[in-house]
Amino acid sequence: MTNRSTLVQDAMTSDGVDALLVAAPPNLAYICGFRPNPHERLIALVLPRDGEPRLVCPSLEEEAARAAGAELLVWRDEQGPADALARALAGKGPRIGIEKQYLTVANAELAAAAAPGAAFVGCDELIGRLRAVKSEDEIAAHRRAASVVDRVVVRMAEAAAPGVTEADLAAECARQLRAEGGDLLPFEPLILTGPHSALPHGEPGRTPLAEGDLLIIDIGVSVDGYCADITRTLVVAAEPDDRQRKVLEIVRAAERAGIDAARAGVPAREVDEAARGVIADAGYGPRFIHRTGHGLGLEVHEPPYLTAANAKPLAAGNVVTVEPGIYIEGWGGVRIEDDVVIREGAAEVLTAAPIGVSA
Amino acid sequence: MTNRSTLVQDAMTSDGVDALLVAAPPNLAYICGFRPNPHERLIALVLPRDGEPRLVCPSLEEEAARAAGAELLVWRDEQGPADALARALAGKGPRIGIEKQYLTVANAELAAAAAPGAAFVGCDELIGRLRAVKSEDEIAAHRRAASVVDRVVVRMAEAAAPGVTEADLAAECARQLRAEGGDLLPFEPLILTGPHSALPHGEPGRTPLAEGDLLIIDIGVSVDGYCADITRTLVVAAEPDDRQRKVLEIVRAAERAGIDAARAGVPAREVDEAARGVIADAGYGPRFIHRTGHGLGLEVHEPPYLTAANAKPLAAGNVVTVEPGIYIEGWGGVRIEDDVVIREGAAEVLTAAPIGVSA
Repeated sequence: MTNRSTLVQDAMTSDGVDALLVAAPPNLAYICGFRPNPHERLIALVLPRDGEPRLVCPSLEEEAARAAGAELLVWRDEQGPADALARALAGKGPRIGIEKQYLTVANAELAAAAAPGAAFVGCDELIGRLRAVKSEDEIAAHRRAASVVDRVVVRMAEAAAPGVTEADLAAECARQLRAEGGDLLPFEPLILTGPHSALPHGEPGRTPLAEGDLLIIDIGVSVDGYCADITRTLVVAAEPDDRQRKVLEIVRAAERAGIDAARAGVPAREVDEAARGVIADAGYGPRFIHRTGHGLGLEVHEPPYLTAANAKPLAAGNVVTVEPGIYIEGWGGVRIEDDVVIREGAAEVLTAAPIGVSA
Repeated sequence: MTNRSTLVQDAMTSDGVDALLVAAPPNLAYICGFRPNPHERLIALVLPRDGEPRLVCPSLEEEAARAAGAELLVWRDEQGPADALARALAGKGPRIGIEKQYLTVANAELAAAAAPGAAFVGCDELIGRLRAVKSEDEIAAHRRAASVVDRVVVRMAEAAAPGVTEADLAAECARQLRAEGGDLLPFEPLILTGPHSALPHGEPGRTPLAEGDLLIIDIGVSVDGYCADITRTLVVAAEPDDRQRKVLEIVRAAERAGIDAARAGVPAREVDEAARGVIADAGYGPRFIHRTGHGLGLEVHEPPYLTAANAKPLAAGNVVTVEPGIYIEGWGGVRIEDDVVIREGAAEVLTAAPIGVSA
């Protein structure tokens, strides 16, 4: 387990925050290496700018939580977390950082009642900017995850025969992602075919694959906590027809343009503009209905986001997806996605599965 | 898709709420049958007490969202959801219900800025009490899910040979849950052996199963949106030794006592007391470190919770787990879990896999 408390405490000093209340599992994993699965039970680290952390923890996580390296304040199901939280926050503050993008209103109200004199400020940016710059150790974990999705996406392309259903392929995919060394699936495999492939976040169903149909395979996995995310679009058991070939080539060129634009110091929106420009020039601008990409790390979607609105420069060590797409209702969709590390020069592309156009 | 807007609007009238802002996926599924996968993007239904609902929706969910039966207010990644949310809330209120147990502080702040004159009140209880009482159609879906976990847990017990790792078994388990008709896994299969089985929420690892070790198999699945959740504890490739047999028998008796106590009109805590009493009488009270059970429905953990603090009577149509356990550090754990429907008379037990004591 990596403990980054000191690194985070340094950032708290420069941001003028006296303590953090950290309850989001990826932030807990980042700061103290503890990766709980809290479901609806509150697990929260109180990290002061100076001094030792405390961990509010349900009794059934107590044994596992010892590894977090914090003083444990354990609560039992019949008590609820309010008292433990009040003890954890006692004497902390007055400026306490909370994760506004993760913390529920109910837990924020618990915290406010537990520390009535405190001023609560958002700490998403503080933790987010640290998490966004990966160490070479973290990048090595991303590389291991990328090699898992590479192997599995190639096998899925081979298994994509007419008659197999989306759901069958998704189930086999999930099995192989684990068998190849994946620890967890950050999202269910998205296997979408025919007109269904026009839904960027559709759910695999009982639709059987048919010869000549488009097939989107979008899969993710985490290894040692770090995610990979890849998408390939194929044509089932046939060469692409003219329209399919044209759209596939446009998306491929857009992805290439995005990757070529991605380097340290470049505003995130320029990567989006580079990819979007290729699609717009080809006349499909309104059919590219999402951002060009997102950061990858302990979460599968995290900063930096590659949108037209994000003017912040990319930094060396950011890991992002580049994934333009074109979606046409009633016809289908095409998306191609790779994972890249932002470097001072050209981006390092982590995913390497061939971008084929037929299965 | 089932649309329960009218049912929810009736409850809003009796609770004096003018509109609901609903962003939690299980609540969206319950109210309008739409099951999105929003990740970090805001999807929110604004349901007025009288009149038509509006749905704030990211552009990439637009096609799927048409089925929600609401006026769509679509936002694009480069815009963010603030404007669409303001349009959705325009003219609603003044009392707007929000899901305090799901909504993030950031989204609550967006809503407050979008509807500056509104008073925001919690609506978790309102939606929760409706969701907690299942119709016979919903119970039929639970029954289908229960039959999937039943079949898979029996096969996992057969596959639990010495040398197989926890992670291998978990991967095979995930594959079978889908192959047997499961749509989604609400949590990763928990396959924990040896001393590891003392961690109620541990993560399956590279530990190989060994003859004579305890093995906890805790798996869940959803079918047509509704969850099943089962746990069996076995001894790998051997008859249980004296201590294992004793603990297995105590937990089995505790589970039986909990199920026998579970019926309409009985306070939830009495089910907890019945199960906990058996374990306490046998001298293991402090080693039963969690509640006796939780509601099941569109989520795998939802009200009603079977804790010592919950005095609310159970209602006919509640679906709950009964799952006492004993956890001993360094030795291991035993948990047995079944899913039951609360009825006026004896509870209906949905899960039926034999409770064996050896694999």
